Amino acid sequence: AARFDPREHQHLRFNPLTERWVLVSAHRMARPWAGQQEAPPQQHVPRRDPLNPLGPGNTRSNGQVNPDYESTFVFDNDFPALQPDAPDPPLDDDSLFQSKAARGVCQVMCFHPWSDVTLPLMRQDEVIKVIDKWAELVEELGSTYPWVQIFENKGAMMGCSNPHPHCQVWASNFLPNEVVLSDRSQKAFYHRHQEQLLLRYANQEANRQERVVVQSSDWLAVVPYWATWPYQTMLLPRRRHILRLTDLTPDERRDLADIMKRLLTKYDNLFQVSFPYSMGWHGAPTGPHLCGGVDHWQLHAHYYPPLLRSASVRKFMVGYEMLAQEQRDLTPEQAAERLRNVPDEHYKNQKK
Amino acid sequence: AARFDPREHQHLRFNPLTERWVLVSAHRMARPWAGQQEAPPQQHVPRRDPLNPLGPGNTRSNGQVNPDYESTFVFDNDFPALQPDAPDPPLDDDSLFQSKAARGVCQVMCFHPWSDVTLPLMRQDEVIKVIDKWAELVEELGSTYPWVQIFENKGAMMGCSNPHPHCQVWASNFLPNEVVLSDRSQKAFYHRHQEQLLLRYANQEANRQERVVVQSSDWLAVVPYWATWPYQTMLLPRRRHILRLTDLTPDERRDLADIMKRLLTKYDNLFQVSFPYSMGWHGAPTGPHLCGGVDHWQLHAHYYPPLLRSASVRKFMVGYEMLAQEQRDLTPEQAAERLRNVPDEHYKNQKK
Ligand SMILES: O=P(O)(O)O[C@H]1O[C@H](CO)[C@@H](O)[C@H](O)[C@H]1O
Ligand SMILES: O=P(O)(O)O[C@H]1O[C@H](CO)[C@@H](O)[C@H](O)[C@H]1O
Repeated sequence: AARFDPREHQHLRFNPLTERWVLVSAHRMARPWAGQQEAPPQQHVPRRDPLNPLGPGNTRSNGQVNPDYESTFVFDNDFPALQPDAPDPPLDDDSLFQSKAARGVCQVMCFHPWSDVTLPLMRQDEVIKVIDKWAELVEELGSTYPWVQIFENKGAMMGCSNPHPHCQVWASNFLPNEVVLSDRSQKAFYHRHQEQLLLRYANQEANRQERVVVQSSDWLAVVPYWATWPYQTMLLPRRRHILRLTDLTPDERRDLADIMKRLLTKYDNLFQVSFPYSMGWHGAPTGPHLCGGVDHWQLHAHYYPPLLRSASVRKFMVGYEMLAQEQRDLTPEQAAERLRNVPDEHYKNQKK
Repeated sequence: AARFDPREHQHLRFNPLTERWVLVSAHRMARPWAGQQEAPPQQHVPRRDPLNPLGPGNTRSNGQVNPDYESTFVFDNDFPALQPDAPDPPLDDDSLFQSKAARGVCQVMCFHPWSDVTLPLMRQDEVIKVIDKWAELVEELGSTYPWVQIFENKGAMMGCSNPHPHCQVWASNFLPNEVVLSDRSQKAFYHRHQEQLLLRYANQEANRQERVVVQSSDWLAVVPYWATWPYQTMLLPRRRHILRLTDLTPDERRDLADIMKRLLTKYDNLFQVSFPYSMGWHGAPTGPHLCGGVDHWQLHAHYYPPLLRSASVRKFMVGYEMLAQEQRDLTPEQAAERLRNVPDEHYKNQKK
């Protein structure tokens, strides 16, 4: 029998956070692609566009005027998926028709007054302000809500309709599905091993190095062993047990700003395009969970970028993926290597 | 407090097959859309294109020539994600780095010799031949493999790169994630209630009617109570317990061909476009499971179509959906009503 080579032989890998397997079939990268080509992102975004509802001093669709902000700016989403006061749905007497109340708030947070920058192109001190604001929002909304989801949809391909650098914050009175899975797995691991799953994982990856993309004294960005998206990464604290963004020291924030800039520069440089992705933070639940019982949690961020082969060819998570199981076309080690090998200097700055 | 109205008040609904919740925020449909527009599907597909690798008599990328087939035609995928002979991956001594062998086969099945038809535009007897071939493949591949996933990716938006009507069949030596979840839930329900979850569900939906799109004597197509995609449907046998496609009687197959044509005509008529989707069949596991222990299963098909507002505006399952929980922008009842209200005659035939 042939000797196992992960780049040649399909196999399954286990995601210990979600307990889902991913099918790794790296030999599929050889197939020709005659399918959909993605449009390039908008070129030459104006720095200040009076018609952009996210810009400082501009008017939003509800008639409100943004302040002349100079750093970050947070406002309530004008079309919130979660509102604080929705009434309870009635009970159904058949257990196949279960519903539950959902309450919360949805906010939008601008990263910068300029529309033509992204996080990797912002200065480190400007990125630190973003991190500080994230922590503030977790503090504020997390004082009552059990879950505060910070996430960024970047690029038209990821459903984002505005090039102005921004993210969203949705706080809810329930723990969302993905969080329930992650909570369960981290808890079980902690009870079995008396250490945090993701602290142990960061240690292991720091030793093995083959999936590390960038690292610093406090942080590690890796393509997880169980990554489903081609260039998916996870951003992890590597030194100590950290529950939430609110617990980060000033040094850890500075270091985080630096590693985010480095990771996102790698992403942009890979296909010489402003890399689309969805990203988000997972930390220990808040609200009633602030009192304890969540020591199994370790703060981390997930980056899910869709591009596969080039700036215009994405991975489609369809068919087999939706009905059966996620499948990837290159190994996580190959993805990490490619990211490591691209320059550290942003291609837009190189050109200057 | 306001009286609960599912079209006005966000709430959560429970999917008893996957044990995942979906956030229903129907009031979000009001928000304007300035984001990505999808390209219209290829117009005027030639009926016979000598360069299309799926057409009868044509040459595929590996140099093989297709027979001059007149109905369905099955061949091995030239770039299979699963192969029968992959060696076992080595064991890692850390439980966070788990892998497992994956073996199987990937086939492609053409529905019809013409490239310019789709299932709703095919004659009923032609669709019956597709169903018969599906059953044959389940019989053949299922004689050894525990899972045979039949799925169709339709439309460029769903990663499909060839307009010729076709589906794929991936058989594996493992039960994929989604199947493991569904198996677990159906089994638990069966042990608790001594009836099949999905037979009970079909009965309930047939009585309630508000989520039914089309029905026949043997089948029911509903927008599930827990649907995540805007116009997601499930196709269910309504009369009796049926494990697999192989168990369908000739009458049930005729009736299935009919209801598939009706459902897919509704889909195409909704936005007057050949409706993109991924669909697939879930039935009782095969291989070693042919001997029994799977009475909790009921055969069904899932349809996952991405369009939300029009032929060019899709739902993006990104950000909050990837990091936290799926969210939908209209109620399943609203979706079912819209589908019920479109004409039964295919728009392409109406125009003739
Ligand atoms: O096999 P195809 O048609 O080349 O590829 C398509 O279907 C596969 C199975 O759903 C997916 O993994 C691919 O991302 C998609 O592009
Ligand atoms: O809130 P937005 O930016 O209008 O909408 C975007 O992000 C949401 C949260 O991830 C998704 O539900 C939408 O499908 C997407 O288009």
